Parts: sequence; structure tokens; C-alpha cells
Amino acid sequence: MKLRNLVGDRFKERPSDCVIDSHALMVRGGYMKYVANGIYSSYPPLKRILKKIEQIIREEMDGIDGQEVQFPVALPGSLWEESGRMNSVGSELIRFKDRNGSSMVLGMTHEEVAVQMVREYAQSYVKYPFMIYQIQTKFRDEARPRAGLIRVREFTMKDAYSFHTSQKDLEAYYEKCYHAYERIFARTGIPEVITVASDSGMMGGNISHEFMLLTPIGEDSIAICTDCDYKANLEAAVSVIHNSNTHPSEEIQLVHTPNASTIEEVAVFLNIPVENTCKAVVYQTNLTDEYVIVFIRGDLDINETKLTKHLKEEIHPALITEESGLNDGYIGPYKLSGQFIVLFDLSLQNISNLACGGNQEGYHYLGFQIERDYGSVDYLDLAKIKEGGICPKCGRHSITISRGIEVGNIFQLGIKYSKAMNMQYSDKDGNLQNPIMGCYGIGVGRLAASVCEARHDDYGPIWPITIAPWQVHLCCLRADDEHAKACADSIYETLLKEKIEVLYDERNVRPGVMFSDADLFGIPIRVIVSPRNVGEGIVEIITRDKSINKRVTILEITTAINELLAMLTADLEGLTSALE
Amino acid sequence: MKLRNLVGDRFKERPSDCVIDSHALMVRGGYMKYVANGIYSSYPPLKRILKKIEQIIREEMDGIDGQEVQFPVALPGSLWEESGRMNSVGSELIRFKDRNGSSMVLGMTHEEVAVQMVREYAQSYVKYPFMIYQIQTKFRDEARPRAGLIRVREFTMKDAYSFHTSQKDLEAYYEKCYHAYERIFARTGIPEVITVASDSGMMGGNISHEFMLLTPIGEDSIAICTDCDYKANLEAAVSVIHNSNTHPSEEIQLVHTPNASTIEEVAVFLNIPVENTCKAVVYQTNLTDEYVIVFIRGDLDINETKLTKHLKEEIHPALITEESGLNDGYIGPYKLSGQFIVLFDLSLQNISNLACGGNQEGYHYLGFQIERDYGSVDYLDLAKIKEGGICPKCGRHSITISRGIEVGNIFQLGIKYSKAMNMQYSDKDGNLQNPIMGCYGIGVGRLAASVCEARHDDYGPIWPITIAPWQVHLCCLRADDEHAKACADSIYETLLKEKIEVLYDERNVRPGVMFSDADLFGIPIRVIVSPRNVGEGIVEIITRDKSINKRVTILEITTAINELLAMLTADLEGLTSALE
Repeated sequence: MKLRNLVGDRFKERPSDCVIDSHALMVRGGYMKYVANGIYSSYPPLKRILKKIEQIIREEMDGIDGQEVQFPVALPGSLWEESGRMNSVGSELIRFKDRNGSSMVLGMTHEEVAVQMVREYAQSYVKYPFMIYQIQTKFRDEARPRAGLIRVREFTMKDAYSFHTSQKDLEAYYEKCYHAYERIFARTGIPEVITVASDSGMMGGNISHEFMLLTPIGEDSIAICTDCDYKANLEAAVSVIHNSNTHPSEEIQLVHTPNASTIEEVAVFLNIPVENTCKAVVYQTNLTDEYVIVFIRGDLDINETKLTKHLKEEIHPALITEESGLNDGYIGPYKLSGQFIVLFDLSLQNISNLACGGNQEGYHYLGFQIERDYGSVDYLDLAKIKEGGICPKCGRHSITISRGIEVGNIFQLGIKYSKAMNMQYSDKDGNLQNPIMGCYGIGVGRLAASVCEARHDDYGPIWPITIAPWQVHLCCLRADDEHAKACADSIYETLLKEKIEVLYDERNVRPGVMFSDADLFGIPIRVIVSPRNVGEGIVEIITRDKSINKRVTILEITTAINELLAMLTADLEGLTSALE
Repeated sequence: MKLRNLVGDRFKERPSDCVIDSHALMVRGGYMKYVANGIYSSYPPLKRILKKIEQIIREEMDGIDGQEVQFPVALPGSLWEESGRMNSVGSELIRFKDRNGSSMVLGMTHEEVAVQMVREYAQSYVKYPFMIYQIQTKFRDEARPRAGLIRVREFTMKDAYSFHTSQKDLEAYYEKCYHAYERIFARTGIPEVITVASDSGMMGGNISHEFMLLTPIGEDSIAICTDCDYKANLEAAVSVIHNSNTHPSEEIQLVHTPNASTIEEVAVFLNIPVENTCKAVVYQTNLTDEYVIVFIRGDLDINETKLTKHLKEEIHPALITEESGLNDGYIGPYKLSGQFIVLFDLSLQNISNLACGGNQEGYHYLGFQIERDYGSVDYLDLAKIKEGGICPKCGRHSITISRGIEVGNIFQLGIKYSKAMNMQYSDKDGNLQNPIMGCYGIGVGRLAASVCEARHDDYGPIWPITIAPWQVHLCCLRADDEHAKACADSIYETLLKEKIEVLYDERNVRPGVMFSDADLFGIPIRVIVSPRNVGEGIVEIITRDKSINKRVTILEITTAINELLAMLTADLEGLTSALE
């Protein structure tokens, strides 16, 4: 491909709406074009990258006996009614009517139609296990698309669905898929991706993992233990609190706390540690606006994912009205009257003297003890784990919080979908059973952006050879020089004959323009032809990361490039085999 | 791939809802799964076929300097407002609102977003010409999806858009694309596809061609001249009528024609040739229900595509009410009163004595002559060409009407989109111009179904080697026989090592079941291992079309299959090169 013919512009200025580097570089480099909020077109360089990533994913999915299929983008609403997700999923699901008034949705994941595809086929245990996958466009009407290709509304995703006759078999396959994912991330150039336990969210099921690329610009928070191998998404991380409050119980007493309504103000005013306070956090359910009051130790925050999961309902922060009967800033469990859902976090267990709201403006209680003054309580894990908190696995105070981009996820779904959609098979004894499912996703565009985020410098992406849009970037400096041009032309033809992918820049532009464009393309191997070097019968070969820079004779060039290609590929494949 | 693990069922009975063979065979063979009206999932065999077709298309598009890009499926309505298609396209366009109330559509073709992608890039004439294409999901809410993958609502399409600075350059590229299309159809195994002139429909523009696979089950009608190379879609075919009515004019007279309201009845009753009658056909416009009366020679029919194009409005057959002032069955141009759009077809030119409706029940006029009795008229080409009609190119009565499936189309769009969307470039003299566009489509699934329609027998598809789901179907008869099984296993491993795609059937089923399944898979080369043959050290190789049937020793098998693969491929590639 000659660069002069390539569709797309490159430019120098960082676009003001690009918050993260990968987004800025991919806009500046002519990779992507804004079409609408969270919706982009791909220019040829990005399309080439995406196709290479898809091929790597495909090979690894085929390698674990996946069978590639294709589901529709537009799905009948009736299938989503069957699974119950038509109601349970919020406004990120696009719903519309077709010309005949039939209810339709745009697929955001494809569990329903995967079950629909195989529920007649797989009616006997002998058909199990099997896995089907597709690589296809999805639409998710995100409230806040951001960060370029990291969080978009329309995206290409590989989604895979496995079907099993036992939990053990699912777990064995889940493990295989886990390793296939490790190979995918290694082969695409980001072997540093880590795996964390996660919350299954709207997917349902219990065990699930996310594959995270750690980076400060990531939108997920991850709790990582520095002492053991515990790693979990903050949303799923278990909060462990050991209270060693052994003070004797005091009498409960109402105290005046003027101008102290936040829990920090109360602690300061009463001169007690914030760990001895009981904070109220109030939500309302989305469906009925019913109030949900969660009491938690004053120094901790609510993990809304855990709360939603417990309630099995979506929630939002409460709007506390006068009619609610709640005294905003002074809500406490003692003598709280009214119809609310009241929950207690585990962090409140075993504290004998708590300060809590007095349920009247300007007053708090001191000496509150839950069991004595309120009654028996089911403590729930509803708190966010904290930096320096206790690791739920090794028990040490060794939790750190990092940020990361989720580049893939795997779920043990169980029978949620097969049961809801009445998919059954006869087992060996002729009894009808619901198959056990797993599902496995990777967003292709997000993966490309993540690689760019992890592999770039100030001047552009540094694409790994396995997914680079081209393998070689051939620059002809001074294309107006007859000899240089003839030499570069002949190298171009030679490399093409060798089936090497070359982007050839023979524009009459200054070297500075040529090199800054080349940096934006991020192609691993750069070959530079200049009049002076051609005079000496040599060319320069430089890698994009500057680690290799050598001069070879024109005759040696094919060999040199093939060696370099083999070496760069082996670097990634080497990492891959080390994982196996 | 072992057949026992392959997802999808095969069965014997022709499904009652399948009207055409390809649909029936692709349902019976486990290729496709009904999801909703005109919406299907693809099982692995079909997905493999589609990927191979896509790759052939991709190679040919790259071969004519196409650059692969990707546009979104969900597009902002504002882009379609810009082009004017938001209003001009009917209910086949899915429109919906996103969570923020923004107007969105599901892309059915992508002219708008193609222009949007390049209108900043291509502001100077030096950037031209170029072509961008994508292979992607489209949605078109067809009123009557039918015939399996032939007419669906959701489909994968290759759509390409070229941009030029002169009509001459567009035409040169159009010609290149025309030949690339011929190669695509030859390589996918249907070189017999013909090219016909077509109507541009909602695309706009003037010159366009359709690539048609002639078959009685096709939904398009095509006028083909048996004497010259004229070929046109019936919708676009020019109707040529030479009237040689040299009778002297007669006086116009009203005659009583009881019980004769159809034009045939009138001709019989009055004992005149039907060619001497003037028939009225009445429509109403969709928007305002205004009446459109078209007069045409009694033996001819209206071509509604031409009529719609002339009116620039959608129409429907009229509902003639009492209030309309029209006398159904007796409508004629003479003394017709009321506010109607009145049009005359070219077929009425040069007839001196016409019978036409009397505009009162039970009466017709005789001796009507348009210019004398009605006035000067702009005759329009609004008639359907007929079997045996005059060829507009060679002038002979040599038109035949065939049916066909449209497997591809190419359009010269002109500046319709670039002008509406204000895409401009500076020409050599610094003047601003709108680029001239072409667009080029191929439906991937429809092509697969068309190949099946053209290449099948009663028992299943006969896939061309280039797009077959696998290259070799290995059947182990009597898999319970230890020697046969071991031999087949070893052949399977050997072929896989040779990178040959093998579907391996080692189920314990009767040969009849195995072979009828194999017929449904339609794989070009079948290798049969049986206990008796293994005893003699040989296997059978049979092609799906039964043209080759030979016995080779087990040692020769790889060579034999590689030779066969080369030969079958050369058959198609040979056709391809003959076209060049």
C-alpha cells in the first residue's frame, strides 16, 4: 500500500476531547472517525488491526474446540422475554418495533439466541460438551461512552457460549478458556494482563473472572493483595473487617450535635474515632422508589454492586423528602420509624459503643449497641474494600487498589438461561436436565485500544508485530531523487513478492513529516532509503521502539527483514508458550 | 472436525415452509436456524462458507485498489437527514431513538457514512480517485422476506464506495469493478451470472447494473434479447412499440358496451384488435392519495418502477370511490373531468382509431384519436416490455423474459450524495467541486444461497471447492471395525497435517445415514474407508457431483487428494482467467 493513497488524515495536535493517550493517538493517526457519541467508523489501519486480532482470537477459540457461528444483531424481543432480561436490563438495551409492530432488540450479548440455536440439537447428553462462538457487532446504549474505543456504544465482540452436563465439566472448560485468553492477550502483545475475580452483573451466575490491563486510566478498580495472589474487581472484592472493640457497653444516650451532620463532623464533635460511628447511606429502588437504608461503619463506603446484587434490583441515591419521615443527616437505627428496607454491613459487628443518628435534626445517640438496642441482625457484606484493608484470602492488611481496563471476561452462568428458556437434555438415566452454561467475551476494539494504551510513546502507538496494520514501513527520503526512488521502488516490489505487508511512503515531504507520520502508524519495522545511503548501497532498518537500528546492504534486506519478523513474532509466541 | 461434535441437526423431510430448494436443503443440512421472520443464525457449515465467500470478495476488492474500512451498523438519523433519505426511504428503514432521545437508524446501505468518513480527507483533487469498502451486517425491514437467505431482513453485505473527479474516471473504475464482480462470481462457482441494466431505485444516479443468476425461482424478471447482447431488468427495460396503424381517422362515437368492462371484453365485443384499445390503469400516490391515471395500449401492462421514477413518489393501486368522479371499468381520456394526474404511454402514439372508456357506465368511445380529440401529449415510456417484444438495442422482435436472482449490483451514483452532504474538493484550478461517486454491493448470504440454488441435486448442495465448508468429507463405514477405524483415523490425521480441511464422520451409523448426511454437507471430495477396502489396502475417492470415482491405495491418498483439489480449484480459477 502506498501511503499517498491511504484514506485518512494524520495530524499533530492532540484533540481536546481525547482524555486518554490511545484515543488521542488513534484519532491523530487516522485510525478512527467519530460518527456519533460512542460510535466510530474504522479507517483502513484500524480495520487491519482488528482483523488480525480477530484472527488470533479465532485461532485460540478453535484451539479449544470452539465452533464459529453467527447470531443476528437484531433479535426478537420474545427471546429476551423468555430469559427475563427484557425487563431486568435497563436502558442500555435498545428496544424497537419492526414494521409489523413486533418487539425487537439490538443484541448486547447473545445468551438467549445461543440457547435458541442449540436447544433442539442438544437434547441428549451425548451431544455435550460443546462451545459455539461468534465475532460480531453488538450495541449497548451506554450512558457515558468515553475514552475512544475503551467504552463505546457499538462494538465488535467475540462472545462464546459453552454447554455442559456437570459443574465439573464446566469448570474444566472454564479453565481451558482461561488459558486460551492468556494466550490471546500474550499474542496480541499484552502478556501483563492479569485475571481478577469479578461480579457477574446482569449475566447472572456465580463465578466469573475479568482480564484486566492495569493502567491508571482504567475505569475499573481492582483490589490486589501484595502478599498473596488475591485479585478481585472492587465491585466483587469481599470486605473483611475485624472489630476489636472491647470497651464495656455504655448506656445509650441522646446528645445534641449542632452543625454536625456528616459522619466525620459527628466524630470530631464527639471526639470519638470514626470507626465507632454507624453511618446511614440511603438509596431508593428504581422500580418503586422504596427507601433502602444501609448502615455501615463510618469510615467505609457502600459497594453498590454488592447492594444491587443483594436486593436483586437496580437502585439510585435517595431523594429524601419531608414526607419520607427520614431526617437527612441524622438517620440512625435506634427508634427509626417508617417502612424502609434496613440493612447492616458486616463492619458494624462486634462494636459495643456506636455513635449513630438520632432521627431528629441536630441529635445523635452515643453508646448504641446493635443487638441490645435494635435486636438481632443479619449482617451483610456491603462495604467497599479499602487500600490497606484486610485481604480476604491471606488475612493480612495488604490490599492495594489499582485501576485497570477490562479486556475480557469469563462467566460460569450455571443454568440461569437454560432453565428460563426451557432447554433440556436427557441424561444417561433418561432424566431431563438443564445444561450448565459458561460464557466468554472479548471486545475486539477495546483490546486494540488497550494494546495502544500499553504500547505507545509520545509520538504514536508501538504496535506488536502480530497485530500491526503493516509489518514494514518503507520510507523513501527525497523521493525526488531518481536513485533513491528507484531503489525504494525496487525494495517495495521485492518485499511485496515476499508476501510482507508494506506501507510505502514515497511522498515528496520533509523527513520530519514522514517520520512523525510513521510514528503515528506505529509499524514495528521501518526501512529508510535516502540518497546518501543509496550511494553507499545500504539502507537503514529501525524498529519502532528504537531497540534495533542497523544498516544493511540492499541485497541483504529481505533476509534482514525476515529475520527481524521472525524474532519479533517469536518474542510474542515465546511468551505464549511460556504460559502453556 | 469430527461430525459427531458438529453443532446442528440434519433431517430428511423437506420443511413445509421452504419454497425453494436451496432454502430447504440449507435448513435440512443444519446450515441455518430461523430466529425471526427474515432473520437467521448461521451454524458452523454456513459460517465457514460465508467466510470463504467474504475472503474471495475481499481479495477482488483489494485487487482493484479497494481499502477495507468499517462503518457502524447503528447510524445517527442526522446523517440520513443530510442526504434526504430519512424521508424518502420507506418503512424498510428501521428508525429508533437512543436513551438520550437522539434519532438513529439501522444502516441498510452506507452512502451517507461513507461520505462522512472522507469528506474532510478528500478536499483536494490529488486525493482522488479512491474506493473504500466494508463487509458488514445490514438491516432492511422487508415487507415480505422469503426464500431463505435470498430475501432476508438482516444480512451481511459487501458495500463499496468509489470517489472520482470526472465522469470518465468513474466509468473507467465502474468497468474495473464490473470485471472484479465477474471474477467473484466465477470464483465462487457461478460463472454463468449475467449482467443486466437496471433501475437505480432509492440509490439515485443513472447508470446501474445488476448481476443476475438466471433461475426460474428468481424474484426478478429480466428481458434478454436473443439476437443481440441487450439484457435489462424488466423494471428498467425500455419498451419499444411501433404502431403502424394507417387506417384513416374515423369520427369519434359513443357506443353502448353492456357487460364489457375489461379491455379484453371490450375488444371482443367491438370486434377490434386489443392493440387498438386504450386502457386506463389507476393508482394513487402514497402521500396524498391523489389519483394517477395512466393510459396504455390495451395489450400492455404498466411498469410500476418506471411510473414511480417518473412521479418521484411511491404509489399504490387505486381504490376507486364514488366520490372520485371516476367510472371504474369505463375510464377514458375523452371528456374525462376531474383533478387527476393523467399520463400517456408511448404505446399509444400513432394510432388513429382507438377504443377507450366512455366515462359512464356501459359505454366506450370508438374512433378516438389522441391529438385530435384530446390534445398534444407528452408520451412516456411506462410499459412493461413483453416476451416477443422489440429489442431496444437491435430493433428485432427478439425479447425473451427470464427470471433471476440479483447477486450483486453496481451503481453510478453521480453527485447525489456528495452534493446533498456538501462534500467538496478543490480541482486543479482551485474551484470547488462535488466528487462523483459509484457504489457496489454484494449480499454474502444471498450469494451462498444462490450458489446452492445453482449447484445442487435432490440430495443436497454441491458446493464448489472454493467455498465448500470443508474440502474433504471422510466417511468411515463400520467405525466399529477396528481396522477400518484405525485406517480412517490415520487418514484424518494425515490430511489435517497437510492443512486440508476435513469433516470426519466416524459415527456408528448405517451407510445410508452417513451418505445422506454427506450429501447434505455437499463437500466436493468424499473419501470412503470400509472394512472390505481396507483389507485390500485401498480407499474410495468420489466427488460430490459423482463425476470422479476412483480407488487409490492408502499410501497414495494425500497425493490423490491434493491433485483433485488442484484440479477442482483450477476449474474455477480457469474460468476466472478466461474472463480477464
